[in-house]
Amino acid sequence: MTTTTTAALGTRDRLISTASRLMQHGGYESTPIKQLVKEAGATMGSLYHFFPGGKQELAVAAIAYGDEEFAELLRTGLALHADPAEAVGALTELLAEALEESMWRDGCPVTATALESVGRMPEVQAACAAAYANWERLVEEKLLACGLSEEDSRDLAMTVLNTLGGAETAAQVGQSRTPLLVAGRHLSRLIASYVPASD
Amino acid sequence: MTTTTTAALGTRDRLISTASRLMQHGGYESTPIKQLVKEAGATMGSLYHFFPGGKQELAVAAIAYGDEEFAELLRTGLALHADPAEAVGALTELLAEALEESMWRDGCPVTATALESVGRMPEVQAACAAAYANWERLVEEKLLACGLSEEDSRDLAMTVLNTLGGAETAAQVGQSRTPLLVAGRHLSRLIASYVPASD
Repeated sequence: MTTTTTAALGTRDRLISTASRLMQHGGYESTPIKQLVKEAGATMGSLYHFFPGGKQELAVAAIAYGDEEFAELLRTGLALHADPAEAVGALTELLAEALEESMWRDGCPVTATALESVGRMPEVQAACAAAYANWERLVEEKLLACGLSEEDSRDLAMTVLNTLGGAETAAQVGQSRTPLLVAGRHLSRLIASYVPASD
Repeated sequence: MTTTTTAALGTRDRLISTASRLMQHGGYESTPIKQLVKEAGATMGSLYHFFPGGKQELAVAAIAYGDEEFAELLRTGLALHADPAEAVGALTELLAEALEESMWRDGCPVTATALESVGRMPEVQAACAAAYANWERLVEEKLLACGLSEEDSRDLAMTVLNTLGGAETAAQVGQSRTPLLVAGRHLSRLIASYVPASD
């Protein structure tokens, strides 16, 4: 029984991680379900066993998976410096490096799917909104811990995430680190203008 | 002959504007070619008459169309104030209003398609890159005219566009003006920090 359960979990996990990667690369509609199932080494039967709601239900799980993966990258980047302005600068360098290493494919795991979901797939849209909120909270906590006000921390976290998201897209389309590195410098400058002077 | 030509141009233009709108809403793959042709009041025959390369060739023309439409919105927003920091703030309010009026559907005309195109459709990707470059030049020219250095103007224009792009996505997904309005305040503050003091 244990072996069966482990094997079953293995298939479910492979479906989720494969869906996450394919959706990161081209969004939900660009990902044919048959190709996804094949790349995950699964069957259509196992897909509907684990996800009775089919592709949309799998997409929601895949977004939660991408959410956590990107959150881990954010945590790593934000921990590189105690100073929040320097940390966000270092984070953008980390993102630029990871993006170039992936041949400009591994950008934000949810942007493409998020845009497709607006007004069409409410559960997928909600999962994307939850991912953004989760990432914003990580930046917000870093800023709060550095002495910024609650309002400034919340607002800056929003702009940091949105600027990184837009710069990732531009870096992918232009196959260049520049949009991210420039965004990093500007976000650092912006955050520094809010950091309370230390005594 | 004139009537025929006008009617022919009419079909071509309808194919392009319909493709632009559908791609703005969900990207390239979410737009089934048969639905597109039907919504444009055209036929598959006329599609291949005007665009022998089919959907991808039409997509390139649609991106150029969306490029010019969004450029017009940028020009309007940037002209609202002489001061570049105030102008970018006013531009984000304009974008937020247009986005809410469209039920959060009419975001950036190319982001969804751009992400799908990376490493898959070089000509579509190049058209998206050209649109970003065109929009950046409009912001850059405004900043240059206000006395910022060439380097600052180029870099700030890049971040303004990328921040607006990311904030548009977040506004659409969260169905809220806030990401754009907050981005507007932060971009204004950032730009103001580069504006040379007037004598």
